[in-house]
Amino acid sequence: MASNSYTPSAPPVPDPYGWGQQAATDSSYPTTAASPSSYYQPPVPAPPSSQSYHGYAPSPLSSSYGQQSPFPPGTNPEVIRIFQAVDKDRSGFVDDGELQQALSSGYQKFSLRTIRLLTFLFKNPHDSSLRLGPKEFSALWNCLGEWHTIFGRFDRDRNGKIDATELRDALYSLGYSVPPSVLHLLVSYYANGSRQKVELNFDSFIECGMIIKGLTEKFKEKDKGYTGSATLSYDTFMSMVLPFLVAYD
Amino acid sequence: MASNSYTPSAPPVPDPYGWGQQAATDSSYPTTAASPSSYYQPPVPAPPSSQSYHGYAPSPLSSSYGQQSPFPPGTNPEVIRIFQAVDKDRSGFVDDGELQQALSSGYQKFSLRTIRLLTFLFKNPHDSSLRLGPKEFSALWNCLGEWHTIFGRFDRDRNGKIDATELRDALYSLGYSVPPSVLHLLVSYYANGSRQKVELNFDSFIECGMIIKGLTEKFKEKDKGYTGSATLSYDTFMSMVLPFLVAYD
Repeated sequence: MASNSYTPSAPPVPDPYGWGQQAATDSSYPTTAASPSSYYQPPVPAPPSSQSYHGYAPSPLSSSYGQQSPFPPGTNPEVIRIFQAVDKDRSGFVDDGELQQALSSGYQKFSLRTIRLLTFLFKNPHDSSLRLGPKEFSALWNCLGEWHTIFGRFDRDRNGKIDATELRDALYSLGYSVPPSVLHLLVSYYANGSRQKVELNFDSFIECGMIIKGLTEKFKEKDKGYTGSATLSYDTFMSMVLPFLVAYD
Repeated sequence: MASNSYTPSAPPVPDPYGWGQQAATDSSYPTTAASPSSYYQPPVPAPPSSQSYHGYAPSPLSSSYGQQSPFPPGTNPEVIRIFQAVDKDRSGFVDDGELQQALSSGYQKFSLRTIRLLTFLFKNPHDSSLRLGPKEFSALWNCLGEWHTIFGRFDRDRNGKIDATELRDALYSLGYSVPPSVLHLLVSYYANGSRQKVELNFDSFIECGMIIKGLTEKFKEKDKGYTGSATLSYDTFMSMVLPFLVAYD
């Protein structure tokens, strides 16, 4: 299904809150089905611009945190400010509701369904609670920034939506070669019974992309040699998959 | 984790609408982790009784359908009546909302989340729509009846709820040996942050049991020799799991 139709024509997307500063380094998963060399290229960091995508301007702030900061070195200070603004009880963690509030200030409002999926995928796996600390929050923010850049690249008419072919190409740009049958399933879900052309907003793009990312990473853990297949026991299979179903309410 | 604590003490559960007439024949999945012989026993069909579980009395009707019936031979006529009552447009199919209505007349009202999961699991795989024909509806009804009998056996105080240990034993009775880590995950989800003892009503029992059943059957398709493990390609893995996530809204 890979084609050579990837011809980005929209101008580079500005970079709200430092989104887009981090290139994709850990989300590429080579499958045996397709070679990405034909039209794959890693996301290109967007240059600062006064023209904003959906009205979000790049942050002019610079980091003022010292070595005691719980945030990773180099964290955009705007990300720190937003985290602190929503972590009102100074617990050092943001929960579902707080994350929804934080992301709303950086972009549109995400559905609680997408928020829960994001929390589940980015939380510290040793923490039984569904919440994010500074490190996890920063990682999520960087990832969303990268995906936001990709989304903007395929949203050529800047209406905030991409269609099924663009979804495929966007996921491909992020390193995921989604089987046609799976892509069809994803798209038909968003069609919701309608026969009209499906278009996904950023929330839906993040939702279905993160499902792909999460499951792919789970699979990679069992396919360390990147062979494209893995042998799983019944218990392992159930433990890999069930968390997605029960967390994803 | 298997114990010998399975000592059903409640009286047999009556059989509303023919539920419980079908023994478990296709849901047993032997895993390498545990032998069911220590306390496993197949579900026992409940004898007719004037005492009803949750007020549902056995149906006095008998089948009057001829060979042209779209229902499988031997289908309880009450099941046919309920199907026809909700299939108002005589399309020959029931959708999510109609199924919810149909099951409400046979038992409690199920959440739409559980209804969608049931439709997804029981629909004809060749039908791209989320809907059930007569055969699928009958199969679902029989399965729910079997599970209702098991649920009633473990709901010893007849308050309509079972706890975590009883959930484990009930799933075990249905042929599913759920790994402790997975069981913990399931239960913590229903705890919803509370530290109180978790109790599941029939809706929640069906929801989490059907997730287990659906994923186990998917795995069995790839482990035809019942070895307890399967080798899956990335595409196969994604195609196995994604339908659960996107159908299960």
